[in-house]
Amino acid sequence: MRAVTVADGELAIAERPDPTPGPGEILVAVRAAGINGADILQRKGAYPAPPGSPPDIPGLELAGEVVERGPGAERFAVGDRVMAIVGGGGQAELAVLHERAAMPVPEELDWPAAGGLAEVFVTAHDAIMGQGELRPGERLLVHGGAGGVGTAAVQLGRAAGARVTATVRNEALRPAVAELGAEAVAPEGFGEHGPFDVVLELVGGPNVPDDLRALATGGRIVVIGVGAGIKAELNLVALMGKRGRISGSTLRARPLEEKALAMRRVEAEVLPLFRSGALRVPVAAEFPLAEAAEAYERFTAGGKLGKIVLTT
Amino acid sequence: MRAVTVADGELAIAERPDPTPGPGEILVAVRAAGINGADILQRKGAYPAPPGSPPDIPGLELAGEVVERGPGAERFAVGDRVMAIVGGGGQAELAVLHERAAMPVPEELDWPAAGGLAEVFVTAHDAIMGQGELRPGERLLVHGGAGGVGTAAVQLGRAAGARVTATVRNEALRPAVAELGAEAVAPEGFGEHGPFDVVLELVGGPNVPDDLRALATGGRIVVIGVGAGIKAELNLVALMGKRGRISGSTLRARPLEEKALAMRRVEAEVLPLFRSGALRVPVAAEFPLAEAAEAYERFTAGGKLGKIVLTT
Repeated sequence: MRAVTVADGELAIAERPDPTPGPGEILVAVRAAGINGADILQRKGAYPAPPGSPPDIPGLELAGEVVERGPGAERFAVGDRVMAIVGGGGQAELAVLHERAAMPVPEELDWPAAGGLAEVFVTAHDAIMGQGELRPGERLLVHGGAGGVGTAAVQLGRAAGARVTATVRNEALRPAVAELGAEAVAPEGFGEHGPFDVVLELVGGPNVPDDLRALATGGRIVVIGVGAGIKAELNLVALMGKRGRISGSTLRARPLEEKALAMRRVEAEVLPLFRSGALRVPVAAEFPLAEAAEAYERFTAGGKLGKIVLTT
Repeated sequence: MRAVTVADGELAIAERPDPTPGPGEILVAVRAAGINGADILQRKGAYPAPPGSPPDIPGLELAGEVVERGPGAERFAVGDRVMAIVGGGGQAELAVLHERAAMPVPEELDWPAAGGLAEVFVTAHDAIMGQGELRPGERLLVHGGAGGVGTAAVQLGRAAGARVTATVRNEALRPAVAELGAEAVAPEGFGEHGPFDVVLELVGGPNVPDDLRALATGGRIVVIGVGAGIKAELNLVALMGKRGRISGSTLRARPLEEKALAMRRVEAEVLPLFRSGALRVPVAAEFPLAEAAEAYERFTAGGKLGKIVLTT
């Protein structure tokens, strides 16, 4: 099979042996695979794949057709359309994954949308509904509202009955983010739009002191992105006074059972909203697998609405 | 009535008008009232009483007999033994408080124990069982295990089926803390005894980076004391990698309904353990109200096991 490979900062397209599904696993012919910030970090050597994942093939999400089932795998039939989060290896023509880490693709979704759905929607749902425990009527702030996770979080927050504010650096993208359901504002001075019950922090450490200042009593800050800096100075008296909490998480390192649980929750609570049209996957651009280097460049350049997706 | 008063750093015993119970309130003849860190801060002018509490009479907890009921107050009869958390004003011969913020005193408890129970056990229970969501079999670290909240947390953790480690600066107090149910260790190098699922941070900011290093995957740090410093440097990548969370809280500023809920939980989950003898209130020293200045000095000197209590 052909696969995107990364090593020592270099990205290439290389031939690799076809993987074989083990017990409980399925082999998927990948049709589309989204690019995420983790891929960029992995290319730099900063975010190695977890044990059990291909060490040099990036890609945390994919969509495709089941072409083979390993011993005992029974959730899907050969030919079924599935999408999934994987620990790595998604950006290839073939991928193996445990059947319980896969979800069915609603028929309303085309391949690019399905290939760019899993990582961002599972991440956003876990962050704002799981960790953040967002409730109807609450106020949600999404930092970086135009990106993959950001566009997912804005839509999920609105669908959950929250009032959503999103910071969007690129002024030209604010109307599109507003159309997804948020008040779209500049990152500077976002605190004036609060207080917020849940803050989804996708930018990093420098935001955290202002996040805490803009937090409502009993509010929750959920950190899932740190591109702008990993250190945050925390005023504990302010945290206590707000009765606030700060949590952080990554999906990638979780054991199979937790990833599978996250998938089940998304199947139950999120996929019906794609069927009804309440949610969509904004795809900023598609690139064939062979043009992965260009796709990575486009991802890193920013200023896009939603996902960059590789297709095979 | 006589009351302890604080103003501009000065502590005195003064005559004040007897308070009158309003609707839903009870007037309590205080028999015992514990001293807490908040009283020391209030004396320094650093922690003003919340609206609705006497601005210059300290005291966050008390026990005594009901001597009068305001209009509509029906939970207790005149003569009943009650204990409570108040926003201030506990260190006086009389105090008024809402009947729903009071709890019955188990007959096994004498006045000094009852007067030193509410603040620390409600605080510790809310912190480790509420915010920390401690589960049986988990590992709990209590910083400052010999103090009022610390001795409460150690006992509550053990009663909940957790394995408890407590840092105790004063080596001479470690056997007594061990007897309450913890492995009692020096504050230096506590991380070697982890990883911990729940960390109760009673010391402050300087501990937080080490707390995070010693945290188990999915662990929770609960900050309720900041005597050693209010700023903490937080490594967000470590927080994400651990899938951890940090919360902070104070009881004092909460509205009546939340304080009342916390009382109901303690009535249901904690008071039965005093009746069975599984929990006790370690009282380090009792002082008559007139010797409040000496009592505050003793509190600040540290090196004690459990509570300093004023009696009337």
